[in-house]
Amino acid sequence: MNDLTKTVEGAVGEMAPTGAGNMSGVTVGVIGLGLIGGSMALDLKRRGFAARTLGVERDPVAAEAAKTIGLVDEVVDLDTCVERADIIVVAVPVGAAVKLATDILDRIQDGEKIVIDVCSTKDAICRAVQYHPRREQFVSTHPMAGTEYSGPWAAQPGLFDGRACIFCNAEESSARALKTIEELYGVLNMRPIYMQAGQHDVHTAYVSHISHVTSFALALTVLDKEKDEKHIFDLASGGFSSTVRLAKSSADMWVPILSQNRDNVLQVMDTYIEKMKQFRDAVATYDEASIRELIVEANKIKKIIR
Amino acid sequence: MNDLTKTVEGAVGEMAPTGAGNMSGVTVGVIGLGLIGGSMALDLKRRGFAARTLGVERDPVAAEAAKTIGLVDEVVDLDTCVERADIIVVAVPVGAAVKLATDILDRIQDGEKIVIDVCSTKDAICRAVQYHPRREQFVSTHPMAGTEYSGPWAAQPGLFDGRACIFCNAEESSARALKTIEELYGVLNMRPIYMQAGQHDVHTAYVSHISHVTSFALALTVLDKEKDEKHIFDLASGGFSSTVRLAKSSADMWVPILSQNRDNVLQVMDTYIEKMKQFRDAVATYDEASIRELIVEANKIKKIIR
Repeated sequence: MNDLTKTVEGAVGEMAPTGAGNMSGVTVGVIGLGLIGGSMALDLKRRGFAARTLGVERDPVAAEAAKTIGLVDEVVDLDTCVERADIIVVAVPVGAAVKLATDILDRIQDGEKIVIDVCSTKDAICRAVQYHPRREQFVSTHPMAGTEYSGPWAAQPGLFDGRACIFCNAEESSARALKTIEELYGVLNMRPIYMQAGQHDVHTAYVSHISHVTSFALALTVLDKEKDEKHIFDLASGGFSSTVRLAKSSADMWVPILSQNRDNVLQVMDTYIEKMKQFRDAVATYDEASIRELIVEANKIKKIIR
Repeated sequence: MNDLTKTVEGAVGEMAPTGAGNMSGVTVGVIGLGLIGGSMALDLKRRGFAARTLGVERDPVAAEAAKTIGLVDEVVDLDTCVERADIIVVAVPVGAAVKLATDILDRIQDGEKIVIDVCSTKDAICRAVQYHPRREQFVSTHPMAGTEYSGPWAAQPGLFDGRACIFCNAEESSARALKTIEELYGVLNMRPIYMQAGQHDVHTAYVSHISHVTSFALALTVLDKEKDEKHIFDLASGGFSSTVRLAKSSADMWVPILSQNRDNVLQVMDTYIEKMKQFRDAVATYDEASIRELIVEANKIKKIIR
């Protein structure tokens, strides 16, 4: 194996002016060739960070698709990936990721290989590896990008450009591993934010997880009515589409997120249901002053969301 | 006053091949120069349906803005508008619209002037004018287009292109009035849908009004948390922005909509709160099978929303 730090640093240094560099040594292995893993593999190769990309995909249909699309140089089995990759990206749903990250840390030697995860929940995985003898070789990240689509078909170049990437419990990683992964996300044009895993999970419960739940509930409400009123969607507006869009998100991804982040999500859902009830009661009693007050307060979101 | 039917029909006939025609006779007066009224005035003039456009705007700041932007040829008072316009568009919030539409029908003579409304709720206004001696000169419509922004500043050309326009209780309008207004919306490139006012209000409660309420509640939930956690929005994703976007919508527009459509909205809110509670209870008990079932069911929205 090459001296990873040196190679990556040198290459990034060279890349700055030209957009291409000599990354001849770095092999990136991505486990889980879905939206996130597939998109990372694509751009790390295209932008010269990875000399070679390996992919592991358990689902045979998805694996074939990843090969056809060309998301990685080679689709291999897990053992081969762990053996040959310098940087191993765990990009499977968060339930499986906790166990897999630990397994991979068990298998690798002390030394230069780096393992990262890209989970949407961070507390469970950070706790799982916290006392692992090779914890320093692990970097826990959450690249905040995505769409409501999933699988290798959903992977796309440029997915991460300009978005935020959260590094959790970064002080538990070695300086070398952290620096390398900061460079990796630098190549993906992501803006780094550092926080503790617990804090991350509170924040994402509010600005990501609850949005998915409200969309799922909205879809369920309207689909219920559609059973009686076939043409209800003839009137669906752009507003409805944008509010319900996340309801297309996959159960494989979201069941373990909601389960792992149960405590935070529950608290947000309870607040949310409370707000809905306030609205409901104001509407029920024709209390226009209260409806107005709630809307005017909600409008303050303008100062934050463009 | 010109023979409106003849003028409009002739002009539309001429327009078909060339996109411009001789509309010299038709004056359109728009009461309420906000997003909808302003955008209609713009395109009706630009596309040659209206030879002249008049606008009425009670708010002096908005009136000045409408003049500056040039939304209409002339900003006038209500009397002048009713006197001079051949087609009068009532484009004020739905609470005020019910009374205003009736008032205008009271003022005009039997004959050729046509009054239309563009309300987002239809049952109240259709009931209010139902037995009016000049009911035939009234056409009740809901052009299903808009954004979360309001006021003359939000008006834009092309807002209605390709969207649906609902005609409610069309059988209560004269054939002549209906035909003229169908032509008006044809010029705006809208697809006509015909239904009864009550049915409209049920459908829009499901595919528009509830989306606004869920967005308002989401904004309130997250803004509440922001009081303690200043940086919570650093992590806001594209998914959150799209789900909360409608929370920017104006109280002036939405208070009367929710109030007028109270019975339908209440029923949808109750179903929605029920769905949220099912989700909440499944998350609370780590019941992953139920969470999965709810998400898979919600995913069926895919077959409907692109």
